[in-house]
Amino acid sequence: MNNYERLEGMVAATFTPMDENGDVNLSVIEKYADWIASTPIKGVFVCGTTGEFSSLTIDERKLILEKWVASAGKRFKVIAHVGSNCQRGAMELACHAEKAGADAIASIAPSFFKPGTVNELIDFFAPVCGAASGLPFYYYNMPSITGVNLPVDSFLVEGKKKISNLVGTKFTHNNLMEMGACIDLEQHKFEVLHGFDEILIAGLSMGAVAGVGSTYNYIPNVYHAIFESMKQNDVETARAWQMKSIRTVEVIIKYGGGVRGGKAIMKLIGIDCGSCRLPIKPFSVEEYDKLKGDLDAINFFDF
Amino acid sequence: MNNYERLEGMVAATFTPMDENGDVNLSVIEKYADWIASTPIKGVFVCGTTGEFSSLTIDERKLILEKWVASAGKRFKVIAHVGSNCQRGAMELACHAEKAGADAIASIAPSFFKPGTVNELIDFFAPVCGAASGLPFYYYNMPSITGVNLPVDSFLVEGKKKISNLVGTKFTHNNLMEMGACIDLEQHKFEVLHGFDEILIAGLSMGAVAGVGSTYNYIPNVYHAIFESMKQNDVETARAWQMKSIRTVEVIIKYGGGVRGGKAIMKLIGIDCGSCRLPIKPFSVEEYDKLKGDLDAINFFDF
Amino acid sequence: MNNYERLEGMVAATFTPMDENGDVNLSVIEKYADWIASTPIKGVFVCGTTGEFSSLTIDERKLILEKWVASAGKRFKVIAHVGSNCQRGAMELACHAEKAGADAIASIAPSFFKPGTVNELIDFFAPVCGAASGLPFYYYNMPSITGVNLPVDSFLVEGKKKISNLVGTKFTHNNLMEMGACIDLEQHKFEVLHGFDEILIAGLSMGAVAGVGSTYNYIPNVYHAIFESMKQNDVETARAWQMKSIRTVEVIIKYGGGVRGGKAIMKLIGIDCGSCRLPIKPFSVEEYDKLKGDLDAINFFDF
Amino acid sequence: MNNYERLEGMVAATFTPMDENGDVNLSVIEKYADWIASTPIKGVFVCGTTGEFSSLTIDERKLILEKWVASAGKRFKVIAHVGSNCQRGAMELACHAEKAGADAIASIAPSFFKPGTVNELIDFFAPVCGAASGLPFYYYNMPSITGVNLPVDSFLVEGKKKISNLVGTKFTHNNLMEMGACIDLEQHKFEVLHGFDEILIAGLSMGAVAGVGSTYNYIPNVYHAIFESMKQNDVETARAWQMKSIRTVEVIIKYGGGVRGGKAIMKLIGIDCGSCRLPIKPFSVEEYDKLKGDLDAINFFDF
Repeated sequence: MNNYERLEGMVAATFTPMDENGDVNLSVIEKYADWIASTPIKGVFVCGTTGEFSSLTIDERKLILEKWVASAGKRFKVIAHVGSNCQRGAMELACHAEKAGADAIASIAPSFFKPGTVNELIDFFAPVCGAASGLPFYYYNMPSITGVNLPVDSFLVEGKKKISNLVGTKFTHNNLMEMGACIDLEQHKFEVLHGFDEILIAGLSMGAVAGVGSTYNYIPNVYHAIFESMKQNDVETARAWQMKSIRTVEVIIKYGGGVRGGKAIMKLIGIDCGSCRLPIKPFSVEEYDKLKGDLDAINFFDF
Repeated sequence: MNNYERLEGMVAATFTPMDENGDVNLSVIEKYADWIASTPIKGVFVCGTTGEFSSLTIDERKLILEKWVASAGKRFKVIAHVGSNCQRGAMELACHAEKAGADAIASIAPSFFKPGTVNELIDFFAPVCGAASGLPFYYYNMPSITGVNLPVDSFLVEGKKKISNLVGTKFTHNNLMEMGACIDLEQHKFEVLHGFDEILIAGLSMGAVAGVGSTYNYIPNVYHAIFESMKQNDVETARAWQMKSIRTVEVIIKYGGGVRGGKAIMKLIGIDCGSCRLPIKPFSVEEYDKLKGDLDAINFFDF
Repeated sequence: MNNYERLEGMVAATFTPMDENGDVNLSVIEKYADWIASTPIKGVFVCGTTGEFSSLTIDERKLILEKWVASAGKRFKVIAHVGSNCQRGAMELACHAEKAGADAIASIAPSFFKPGTVNELIDFFAPVCGAASGLPFYYYNMPSITGVNLPVDSFLVEGKKKISNLVGTKFTHNNLMEMGACIDLEQHKFEVLHGFDEILIAGLSMGAVAGVGSTYNYIPNVYHAIFESMKQNDVETARAWQMKSIRTVEVIIKYGGGVRGGKAIMKLIGIDCGSCRLPIKPFSVEEYDKLKGDLDAINFFDF
Repeated sequence: MNNYERLEGMVAATFTPMDENGDVNLSVIEKYADWIASTPIKGVFVCGTTGEFSSLTIDERKLILEKWVASAGKRFKVIAHVGSNCQRGAMELACHAEKAGADAIASIAPSFFKPGTVNELIDFFAPVCGAASGLPFYYYNMPSITGVNLPVDSFLVEGKKKISNLVGTKFTHNNLMEMGACIDLEQHKFEVLHGFDEILIAGLSMGAVAGVGSTYNYIPNVYHAIFESMKQNDVETARAWQMKSIRTVEVIIKYGGGVRGGKAIMKLIGIDCGSCRLPIKPFSVEEYDKLKGDLDAINFFDF
């Protein structure tokens, strides 16, 4: 694996821009990247859950990644999510990611057939990671959506023996005890990227120093304030900012959650990523209006 | 949609043959097809759950289907499973299935992002079915694996309004009340393909006249006897045969279920489909021996 | 254990009559028992799930049982459900049931703390059954509500070694394969009481000869016809009757399920059992009207 | 409701001492109370989940509470858990708690029949709280065990309108966003008692100022250090202590969790509470030895 820097601070899980026909709209990514570069965000997570990877073809995922690498222009890091239920598809994407110039790869667990043990998960990932051996690899743990709830601390320790480029985990799970155990692992000092924006302060208190999430896209200053306050041990101020994040997440939950509701917010802040692909149903004009009203009610546009 | 015959009796959910490197082994399919043709099995279900569709690339799925159509040679029907979390991938497969000469298509619900209502499921399927409008379409309902548990009777009634080639459902679910409700729908007389081999007799008592399953591959005479006995209202004889099926399924559950354990049985009966792809772990030589012992103990080879 | 007859045919899971203050209304039970005696129903299951046992005090459960034994007057059997999360409470109820003259006892698994193995479940039940050693004991299996999903066939075989009066199971679960395995156990010929009225025909096809359920209370002739048709191997007629049952159950599901909706139907057929206790919310006058309309629409009152 | 002080710091969820016959061993409670009084613990939570309330009779619960009130002797607060699936049982316990001199009551949601809405839960609790109207009431929220996952912030706001003595919640749930929303409610400044000891630091960062848990019983100094460090905004020190708590909880999980494993630890620290009641299986001598070894390995006895 090449030299790499540990992540600190915010990584935005990007939305995949689509046009009115539901085709991927690569042209938006440049503007999107400029927006990211204008914030304290340190990296982007491309074609993850927020990016609707499971609704994209392999070729689309490659093109999207290439466009992000080009548009980032080294202003921030680009992490390529290469997860797939099909191991060979994931290998193809990993190989492509390295060639395309991504800074790291990550993968969610397969979830149609579910690995039943840590070793089965490791065996599934090993050739995928081997296909991008020059890049650091993060295991993207999200049991609520995959149904795969294996102990991540064991995965890291055991996985490192077979996967030399394993460096950490994107930990999107409410089990903060397990997250704490991951952070506390001595030998390899794995990176733990906190994955639930709405409780970032809790993750930082447990020792995380970086986070990956979709709401960083549109209220980066809120989270920047949380990171900075926590660095200065000012928990109270951090908590006040966290409440703004919670109020925002309460709104997006009303609109179907972080992918659907979040994508709609992107349009409201001027980066039109269109609607989601089915089975996530499209956003209507009336809904945009209601959403705007709900965001106004929590003073979102002044955050 | 073209004229088509309603299915009756057994449809085998086929395993995907793989070689020692985990590559798809198309060459086995001819022999496999000859075996199917030598039994009372009426059709095959290709690249479904048993066929590990989620572990295959789009190209592999196309090649496998083509090989089955060629090998069947009209001796039995070929149903192409075209399901995918990616609607565009499913559309591509549906289009291909029609061109390739399949007799019907079927699709499981998307399961990474889950449709929350019957209408969302219909909207997801509509363009997929439209891409193979000359073929009958079966909705493959399997909530235990997809987590999508929407009422199938409503889906059929409402779906028919938008999907003219919708003709029925592969109902792989323990909710036999719902299955009964599907069978009882008057207007379109939908086909309900019973999907749990181990309780086929229960499904037939509820009114099903066809079944799709993986264990038909290796004990077709057991199920043929069930179908024939039930036709003659001889429930007691049917039940005695059903117990042989239950004893068999109890064994395969010990070995990881119908896909992993069943694939191993295929080798034991002389049609070597190899191991499953990860995340389903490979079968060891010791396991084959133990499996054979367990099957001997229930007199499987005399069924 | 005393001599006892195996159950055949219908056992009604009784509702607990309550008055306008939510007090148990014992006075209704006499009329209720006369109604049962006027039907082909062979027994009653007292203070089970339908009878809201978990919302009753121990003393109330004793009084209700005593009233049923007296009102039955040997015209039909009385099975006392003695289940409780508190083993000592269950023992007290079992002891009382025998003294009170019940014909059998039954118990659901504890569900706040959940036994994790078959042996833990057996150890929990052993002293309960010992407290009514002269009565046959049925294990009431209902994983959907208890979350305890242990293999009942193993429970029966292993349990018989420690619980001599264990004679069978009230099997309220969609896993008909497991139910088939219970019926097929050779050594003790356990009784398997089918527990899902809406798929009785499926249970009978698997070999059950008795059923316990709440809808037997109000459409006993429908189920009697199913039992009789199946005895004569007339599956088609049985199925036609089963559809009437399914239509009825579809209605009660709309009103909150078998306990809440079913109790309301009891009033409509002239045996006023009042409302359920909280947390099951009371039935309003408007709801009674709507329910009556829905039942009319399926010709319920002509079944 | 009487005047009452808000809780701050640690509340120990007490174990119920039992003797070798499984009878409640009231005599241990005096020594247990002296131990509590010798620590910075501010209160005890009696007959909750840790206290195996669901395995106790109503009479036992009353006697245990009375003994705790007497043994506490105002040295620390006594919170009586009065929860029951049976509303009338809960009312009886609430009434008794007030007469017995408890400082507060609390109740878990009914979990056999589950309330489906916030209003149903409020209606269930209203008469229970009314039966102890002079005492503050805490809603004990624990979805992982009850399956009742209703938004607690809504419950508090809506519940206050019907339940005047509602003052807060024992929040035993991983959803820290919801917990944050409860803390942030302006109008009534509800108390939020953090319920997962192993992530206390996360709860405090979200704004909680008190916690209720079972591990406070045996490592109060660990948690006291966390509370004190967090008060001084020394997150790093708090985190180091939290890791000791996590290591401890990892051990008790190996022995069946906080109730079974924790009760065994009580014996090791000199307060012999015996074994749990079934269905929680008894602790063997060998297990005590192994447990001691596992605790030694994490330096538990030096914490």
